[in-house]
Amino acid sequence: MTDEKKSLVITVVGLGYVGLPTALAFHEQGFTVIGVDNSSEKIEMLGAGVDPLVDATADNKIPINSPSWKVTTDYLAAIPESDIVIITVPTPTFPDKSPNLDYVRSASKSVLESLNLEGHTTVVLESTVYPGVTRKTFVELSDELGPTIGDIFDIAYCPERVSPGDAGRGVSSVARVVGSDNEQIGRMLADLYSTITDEGCQYVGGIEVAEAAKMVENVQRDIDIALSNELAIVLSQIGVDVEEVLAAADTKWNFHRHTPGIGVGGHCIPVDPYYYISLSKQVGHTSKLSIAAREMNESMPSEVIKDIMIHLGNKQLSSSKILLLGFSYKPEVGDIRETPARELGLLLSKSGADVLVWDPFVEDGGIPAELRNCNDPYQEDGMDMILLATAHNEIVNLDWEKMKEVCNYPLIYDGRRVLDREYFESKGWKFGGVGVPIFD
Amino acid sequence: MTDEKKSLVITVVGLGYVGLPTALAFHEQGFTVIGVDNSSEKIEMLGAGVDPLVDATADNKIPINSPSWKVTTDYLAAIPESDIVIITVPTPTFPDKSPNLDYVRSASKSVLESLNLEGHTTVVLESTVYPGVTRKTFVELSDELGPTIGDIFDIAYCPERVSPGDAGRGVSSVARVVGSDNEQIGRMLADLYSTITDEGCQYVGGIEVAEAAKMVENVQRDIDIALSNELAIVLSQIGVDVEEVLAAADTKWNFHRHTPGIGVGGHCIPVDPYYYISLSKQVGHTSKLSIAAREMNESMPSEVIKDIMIHLGNKQLSSSKILLLGFSYKPEVGDIRETPARELGLLLSKSGADVLVWDPFVEDGGIPAELRNCNDPYQEDGMDMILLATAHNEIVNLDWEKMKEVCNYPLIYDGRRVLDREYFESKGWKFGGVGVPIFD
Repeated sequence: MTDEKKSLVITVVGLGYVGLPTALAFHEQGFTVIGVDNSSEKIEMLGAGVDPLVDATADNKIPINSPSWKVTTDYLAAIPESDIVIITVPTPTFPDKSPNLDYVRSASKSVLESLNLEGHTTVVLESTVYPGVTRKTFVELSDELGPTIGDIFDIAYCPERVSPGDAGRGVSSVARVVGSDNEQIGRMLADLYSTITDEGCQYVGGIEVAEAAKMVENVQRDIDIALSNELAIVLSQIGVDVEEVLAAADTKWNFHRHTPGIGVGGHCIPVDPYYYISLSKQVGHTSKLSIAAREMNESMPSEVIKDIMIHLGNKQLSSSKILLLGFSYKPEVGDIRETPARELGLLLSKSGADVLVWDPFVEDGGIPAELRNCNDPYQEDGMDMILLATAHNEIVNLDWEKMKEVCNYPLIYDGRRVLDREYFESKGWKFGGVGVPIFD
Repeated sequence: MTDEKKSLVITVVGLGYVGLPTALAFHEQGFTVIGVDNSSEKIEMLGAGVDPLVDATADNKIPINSPSWKVTTDYLAAIPESDIVIITVPTPTFPDKSPNLDYVRSASKSVLESLNLEGHTTVVLESTVYPGVTRKTFVELSDELGPTIGDIFDIAYCPERVSPGDAGRGVSSVARVVGSDNEQIGRMLADLYSTITDEGCQYVGGIEVAEAAKMVENVQRDIDIALSNELAIVLSQIGVDVEEVLAAADTKWNFHRHTPGIGVGGHCIPVDPYYYISLSKQVGHTSKLSIAAREMNESMPSEVIKDIMIHLGNKQLSSSKILLLGFSYKPEVGDIRETPARELGLLLSKSGADVLVWDPFVEDGGIPAELRNCNDPYQEDGMDMILLATAHNEIVNLDWEKMKEVCNYPLIYDGRRVLDREYFESKGWKFGGVGVPIFD
């Protein structure tokens, strides 16, 4: 990219797990970057040079003294002077699982209301949506607010693919795709994004192609994980450990291995399939696969509880004290969005169990009131079971000899299949886990 | 493997796509090999040095003059002198889709009836089954016929993974796994199989682990393909070409791309999921994923016909002449087991279309009587549509300019997404295909 292009002003709207590292990456490449977020608390923290995100693998250095870096809650202090506006706001689902596009609409509206009508701005949506949403959102807003697409502004879609907590899959190390009706703009954006990732960015054609690609990626992943969960349940019933089977199958050239567990969380995989299901219904071909996958993955907390009850034997859940290790939806982050550990903990608590939760990444407010917060797992006692829910390194590498001392009976349930079953059994633990046969 | 071990006598029961190349591979490695098959016709062909299989990529040289090679229909001429007996017989499904284990039972019975009771024989099943079948089959036969497992004979399971027609995935180039209750025998077999494949063979533990691995591989593949087929239908409805989306998604590190098509055929993928579904029902956790995948893949011929009718426009199917290119279930082989081209052709024919079929690999008897056999596609005329059903190289590389001359109207439907849409459109063809939007 030429120095002329590096004079571009880029605004990133929404400074979360995706937006903040994206803004920092463009700033590091020499662009002038403005970060916009509705949360004044977040903007204050950033203003003080503090990273508001909890991610053990992220190393977000906030360049508070840089002249080419600014953060604000005020769209008017950012959008009019921007060449490129990147929107990275959440796209959750409503309680009925229909897509909640409110954040996308409201951020897009604020951007359009603040556009410099004398210039040209390229607006890029990164939030996960289903095909057609980007176009519909901006066409409607354009009709309502005036600025015309192709004249005052152009639109594009470039799905984020960051995997928080996964050190190798940050903004700088994931391949990107960009879709735009305007090929020239699409190729310019591909060049632009290529400056912040080693894996390159490809222009793939229309907006809907890029939108669909992102949706499809997560739909596929949800189905992949659902199959491993289903296999865990079916195979354990015949005394076969699913992990041995998956390891054997994985020797085949075209097999892809996924690990079963207590469920799927986060902002993408439990959400995007509902976008796809919604789209498939609209076109009259309702996805049975994606519905089956969602049902399977969402049933995992209750499947795990059935399993746990067998492990506890004569001990009733209602008189059990259980230490839940980990609460966030994936290792090395504090993000608890859609975490299956919540439902697992709440179901146990509803059954009368006394549930203590230790998660070094989750802030105090993150643990529901029905569960008890634990600050130091070594200081507990009288546990009837230890239940590993999130495979933070700090949890996997606990001093398990010491942890035995907090147990009434050394029973561990590996909800993520990250512990070495043979090792634990050799050390006197009774070992259960997702897909571990109870009788074999 | 030591020369002493190479003195082993290996019998292969069932000389089909798997058994014959396996027998030849062991013979080539210096073992004494006996091939057994119930078909006297096949044994006669082999006796005359003729390969009875139709597979363009296979190069089976029959060593008729070798003293360490013998083929026979007589179990008693093979089993008593064998150290290892490998059973590779088909495992189809009954019309109600329940597993048909008749071939496995009957071959196993013939083997056990012929065992040398003074010696020790290792019996290896390679046929695809679901977990528990190998053990149950031999335990029942042992009870019935006398020879005891662990004494007169031992059992093991080593699933075949050959991909016929796929030059890179023959017996010598696929990784193998073997399961046996007897670890020593399991490891001996892993060594033995490692002599015939560059990719090695691993002992993976119990028989059921190896049985489940094979089942799971094909269950996963069926689901993978089903998702791409479902996406083809859903996305084409919104004017997006699924292949563009899959190409974009495929830039992500953990995406795995599969091509949509007219359906899934062959002896494994349309069959093994029913084994899994049957098992899942037995344990009280019926697989919704696998059922949804089967429904999706089995519905593809009728989905394709809906699509075709739109392409034909005012032309009724009942007055259309259609040239079906390819009939076998996959490229470069003549195998028509479970080929979706059969249902596609028959459905078209039932709707009154005149369907001509050209498949250079399929023998005359393979084409159902309701369809007409075509010996030379260039010699036909008056076609209303050309429908590519199997992507044999010979089909993909037809002289398409010449093919245009056999058409009333140059309309091509790519049922395998192997043709270059842009190229065909530039040459004046109207182009349809699985997942190609009709209006875009």
